[in-house]
Amino acid sequence: MKRFMDEDFLLSSETARKLYHEYAESMPIIDYHCHLSPKEIYENKPFRNITHLFLGGDHYKWRLMASMGVDDKFIRGDGDEYLKFIEYAKCIQRAIGNPLYHWTHQELKRVFGISEPLTEASAPAIWEKCNELLATPDYLPRRLIERFNVKVVCTTDDPADTLEYHEALSKDASFPVKVLPTFRPDKAVKVNLAGFSEYIKTLSQVSGVSINSPEDVVKALGVRAEYFAARGCRISDHALDTVPCAETDMALVNAAFENAMRGEVPAEAETDNYRGYVMIKLGEIYNRLDWAQQYHMNAQRNNNTNIFKKYGADVGFDSISDAPISEQLNKLLDAQEKNGCLPRTILYSLNPAANYVLGTTIGNFQTHGGVYGKMQFGSAWWFCDQLDGMRDQMKTLAALGALSAFVGMLTDSRSFVSYPRHEYFRRILCDIIGQWVENGEYPEDYDTLKEIVQGICYENAEKYFKF
Amino acid sequence: MKRFMDEDFLLSSETARKLYHEYAESMPIIDYHCHLSPKEIYENKPFRNITHLFLGGDHYKWRLMASMGVDDKFIRGDGDEYLKFIEYAKCIQRAIGNPLYHWTHQELKRVFGISEPLTEASAPAIWEKCNELLATPDYLPRRLIERFNVKVVCTTDDPADTLEYHEALSKDASFPVKVLPTFRPDKAVKVNLAGFSEYIKTLSQVSGVSINSPEDVVKALGVRAEYFAARGCRISDHALDTVPCAETDMALVNAAFENAMRGEVPAEAETDNYRGYVMIKLGEIYNRLDWAQQYHMNAQRNNNTNIFKKYGADVGFDSISDAPISEQLNKLLDAQEKNGCLPRTILYSLNPAANYVLGTTIGNFQTHGGVYGKMQFGSAWWFCDQLDGMRDQMKTLAALGALSAFVGMLTDSRSFVSYPRHEYFRRILCDIIGQWVENGEYPEDYDTLKEIVQGICYENAEKYFKF
Amino acid sequence: MKRFMDEDFLLSSETARKLYHEYAESMPIIDYHCHLSPKEIYENKPFRNITHLFLGGDHYKWRLMASMGVDDKFIRGDGDEYLKFIEYAKCIQRAIGNPLYHWTHQELKRVFGISEPLTEASAPAIWEKCNELLATPDYLPRRLIERFNVKVVCTTDDPADTLEYHEALSKDASFPVKVLPTFRPDKAVKVNLAGFSEYIKTLSQVSGVSINSPEDVVKALGVRAEYFAARGCRISDHALDTVPCAETDMALVNAAFENAMRGEVPAEAETDNYRGYVMIKLGEIYNRLDWAQQYHMNAQRNNNTNIFKKYGADVGFDSISDAPISEQLNKLLDAQEKNGCLPRTILYSLNPAANYVLGTTIGNFQTHGGVYGKMQFGSAWWFCDQLDGMRDQMKTLAALGALSAFVGMLTDSRSFVSYPRHEYFRRILCDIIGQWVENGEYPEDYDTLKEIVQGICYENAEKYFKF
Repeated sequence: MKRFMDEDFLLSSETARKLYHEYAESMPIIDYHCHLSPKEIYENKPFRNITHLFLGGDHYKWRLMASMGVDDKFIRGDGDEYLKFIEYAKCIQRAIGNPLYHWTHQELKRVFGISEPLTEASAPAIWEKCNELLATPDYLPRRLIERFNVKVVCTTDDPADTLEYHEALSKDASFPVKVLPTFRPDKAVKVNLAGFSEYIKTLSQVSGVSINSPEDVVKALGVRAEYFAARGCRISDHALDTVPCAETDMALVNAAFENAMRGEVPAEAETDNYRGYVMIKLGEIYNRLDWAQQYHMNAQRNNNTNIFKKYGADVGFDSISDAPISEQLNKLLDAQEKNGCLPRTILYSLNPAANYVLGTTIGNFQTHGGVYGKMQFGSAWWFCDQLDGMRDQMKTLAALGALSAFVGMLTDSRSFVSYPRHEYFRRILCDIIGQWVENGEYPEDYDTLKEIVQGICYENAEKYFKF
Repeated sequence: MKRFMDEDFLLSSETARKLYHEYAESMPIIDYHCHLSPKEIYENKPFRNITHLFLGGDHYKWRLMASMGVDDKFIRGDGDEYLKFIEYAKCIQRAIGNPLYHWTHQELKRVFGISEPLTEASAPAIWEKCNELLATPDYLPRRLIERFNVKVVCTTDDPADTLEYHEALSKDASFPVKVLPTFRPDKAVKVNLAGFSEYIKTLSQVSGVSINSPEDVVKALGVRAEYFAARGCRISDHALDTVPCAETDMALVNAAFENAMRGEVPAEAETDNYRGYVMIKLGEIYNRLDWAQQYHMNAQRNNNTNIFKKYGADVGFDSISDAPISEQLNKLLDAQEKNGCLPRTILYSLNPAANYVLGTTIGNFQTHGGVYGKMQFGSAWWFCDQLDGMRDQMKTLAALGALSAFVGMLTDSRSFVSYPRHEYFRRILCDIIGQWVENGEYPEDYDTLKEIVQGICYENAEKYFKF
Repeated sequence: MKRFMDEDFLLSSETARKLYHEYAESMPIIDYHCHLSPKEIYENKPFRNITHLFLGGDHYKWRLMASMGVDDKFIRGDGDEYLKFIEYAKCIQRAIGNPLYHWTHQELKRVFGISEPLTEASAPAIWEKCNELLATPDYLPRRLIERFNVKVVCTTDDPADTLEYHEALSKDASFPVKVLPTFRPDKAVKVNLAGFSEYIKTLSQVSGVSINSPEDVVKALGVRAEYFAARGCRISDHALDTVPCAETDMALVNAAFENAMRGEVPAEAETDNYRGYVMIKLGEIYNRLDWAQQYHMNAQRNNNTNIFKKYGADVGFDSISDAPISEQLNKLLDAQEKNGCLPRTILYSLNPAANYVLGTTIGNFQTHGGVYGKMQFGSAWWFCDQLDGMRDQMKTLAALGALSAFVGMLTDSRSFVSYPRHEYFRRILCDIIGQWVENGEYPEDYDTLKEIVQGICYENAEKYFKF
């Protein structure tokens, strides 16, 4: 019987413990993809209480509470914040086997020094203790980031964004963490969504490019990408959901754009062709800027119409798509490769049934000698970002490619206290590798093991993204 | 080395053993979905021998025998019943790693008190012993059910069924087990199958509704649902196979009905629209009656034409469909949610590659505060109803939602001796949870552990179905 | 801590070690599917060095090197062979968790007696030692085969092949290993690929059949199949990639053929119908000759256009397709079954997400009493041919069908030193079964365990293929 979530949590062998405590634990963090607000980092305002910090904006937690029948008043609604925390405690107490059980307790431990399990009974005292601490300077947003030895944070930003907070942060010598923008042009790609034409007007204004065609969209995005690059951006990101076609017909591409600008929803084939066209052209821009691109696939979003009308997107009503991706995805990457401008690329699928597809697809484009792991199978994402999901992603990557070249963990989080997920990831990584060594499947070559572990924890990402 | 299938079978840790023996083992059984014949329960006729009890109607066992090259004469054919048992014994002896190996030995042990492995050599003596016992009153169908501490059995019934045996059983004070009907209107939904128009005539007659349109079909089903409800029905069930579209066009819906009533097979789009229309309307009926609905998806049935012509359906020639379901399924549920009448729903997929899709889809509709686990990811079904399949379903549910709110096991069986599968399930459940506790992944909070284990074994189902 | 890859490698329990060392280890090998060149076996020329033997033609190894950023000059290019080996050693040193790590070290140990891990540091000495040994007669191609106790090798051959080397080998009494051809008519089936019409001319010439229609293609293939059968062929093989339709329309079938013969690429539906037609007809031929047929599905080939233009096929740029297969595959097999001429069949999918589909599909056609495992779920293939992939395939087969009837391992390899993969497979098999026994999930019935283990290692294949 191991003690509950102690210092050797998830480390089931002697070798795993050695790898973690000697090599992994002290490495700094590069959080190369998250959804933190640069404004909130800049303004550095205190959190009014633990509900604000833990439950404000965290749709993972909302979703768990809803699954257990909590009234929406205490989830997304205007219920009392103390009662919301009590409701959350009741759910967490019963959330056995759910990643939130571990995340919550790691957050309590690493952020507040609380090792006691959160239950309905312990919640009132924990509420008091956390709130006291949150009123102290060590619990301001920036300090939370610094305390976890974070070197780089990459936020997620619209091309039309001014990046004013990134600029302000970069000039603030009192905060040593690099906060870099990530270029996420979803609104310019998703031609079939409401608001496209308004967005294009904004993009035109911000870029100074008059936009009358898909070519102009690309031109404007190029201008903004240069702007982002000048402010430290090294990465783009795409919520690709489904993968568009790569053999594009310009008549359909243009029709999509024209229909959308008239406020009409383009036909499916038009949308598909437009999306494919823009993605291929963006690849050229990213490649020229020496950026890495990220494709997030197989999310199926906003499935509950009533909720979407009430609360909008990203509030916990998304799920996994099982639409096939292998054919379109390879063609899209090949289209970029054929042009000689496939950027370094990280592929994520929300559907773990696609893990083998991703793990083998990256191998099709590893053609650039000198880049250690040019094509990456990204870390287990969102619903997969838990014990079995991460184990499966890492073991699949190892079996099909080069785990050693993996750029590792990111939080993808909206919360200031998600950094213990890097610890969680590192423990799982060290446990997997430790088990291989214990099983006689890899020798006790600690020099190479150290290089591999520290590479995946930190070094690989630093080199890959060229921070 | 653990002893072969002893009292600690599948319980690999001290905590697992404690959870099982102290909390799970003695809980009663609610078998909320099975295919037992209410007529056979009512008539309570003795089984003539172990072949009759074990092999009559059990396509799992037939399928194993066929895989090992047994002549069909000794499977579905008119071979001697003793020889059939010997053939089965030869197969079971070699069925290493197959759930039938465990099911068979659990049935021998729990029903007949036989702990010896069934082999070609042991089969003659086991044949004798079982047959002797089968001639005694303790082995009549009703006693078999009672001996397993079963509180509720939900059979699977056509809306046109009179439910006469359910009525008779409910009036028989000597049999304390509730035998409740389940409403399964597949014949009214599957408009493209042979026999639809004849079925509609029967439905019309039984319901007293003149049926001239899809609306009338729904009306007649509503009448019958009320009839079922008055006889204790709390659940509906659908062999959905593939998921129909939710944005239905009434012209296509009507065309499907009209073509089918003329004895023609409707076009695929017509069938799809008709099915979607009826399913959405049925959701309204179920919601009004406060029933739970069950969707069984991704079965691909009757794949062997020769066999289907010879023996009909459900004789062991079905397999798993890998047709994508996420988009249509969410739209179908959303259509019911939008109308404010999505019933409590249990989703089952025969394809474990869809486990993550189901585990996240349920989260999209957990919007009814006060219901503990309104949307359920159903227990591992049919081909998945085995060690790894059940482990995978439970761990996936835990990682993506609320395992604690799970309504747990059902047999889905045609056999009177399948109740040990609840024991099998409970052992696996306790082993998973026990391992988490042993690993320090959940604290030794035995009050909450007891609540969770007994909830999944019994309490959750009792509350969820409102028996 | 187990020692690195010692005699008990992968055998985690006492029972596993007993099963492996007492029953499995000494069984001969039947390698019923590989890509060895019969010409190279016949000519028996020495390997000039370890790079030639290890890296010449092995796209698994090339792919790993490319993933780690090695310049193509040292992979497929004209780089110095010593430097290529050094580059490979650097990659292998870091290839933790990849099957190549184990394959390489098993090859070094079993072929060269080298137990030291291959690293950048150890590589120069290993280069020397291996090259010395390669110059001795024990390291000629034929001796490599003989040293691994191989009884039968089935190569992969085009129907137009003369089989001259097979004939020569069969007459050479000094080489006791049976080298048999396998009939792989991909070029006659893939009507949409470049070179079809030229191929048909060759086929016509070799078969003596004038080919003017799809019926003639089948006739010519039938002539060649007889020719192959007369030279010991017992198996056909198909790179099916996607599964064609089974309800064929002869107008489309003919159109495909006619278009292709005119040098035009047939429409998708034409191709699909032609492929389905030929496959069904080939089933009749195979059934008449009492052959087994193999379907390899879900490969997605030649995804990198630049590389394909430079190097052609099979150089490491293939990946996994996630196209659904269950519906078409069952219809294709049913079409053969309906005609009463479904041959013994082995199904392989490159996508492990289809394992449950395959494991249940075979059950739909197990209708031939007397054949032990007529329909087979083939061993984990290509990207799945590694620890977790093999475990998953075997456990899935066991759970869904009859593991005991499994025909077991094949190398599918282009290399003369891949036979240790049979050892790898056997260790995994014995470890799985040993664990079941240790867990009390199967009794210590060593007679049956021996029969099962030796059946899967050797006996089943010998009987199944009727060598």
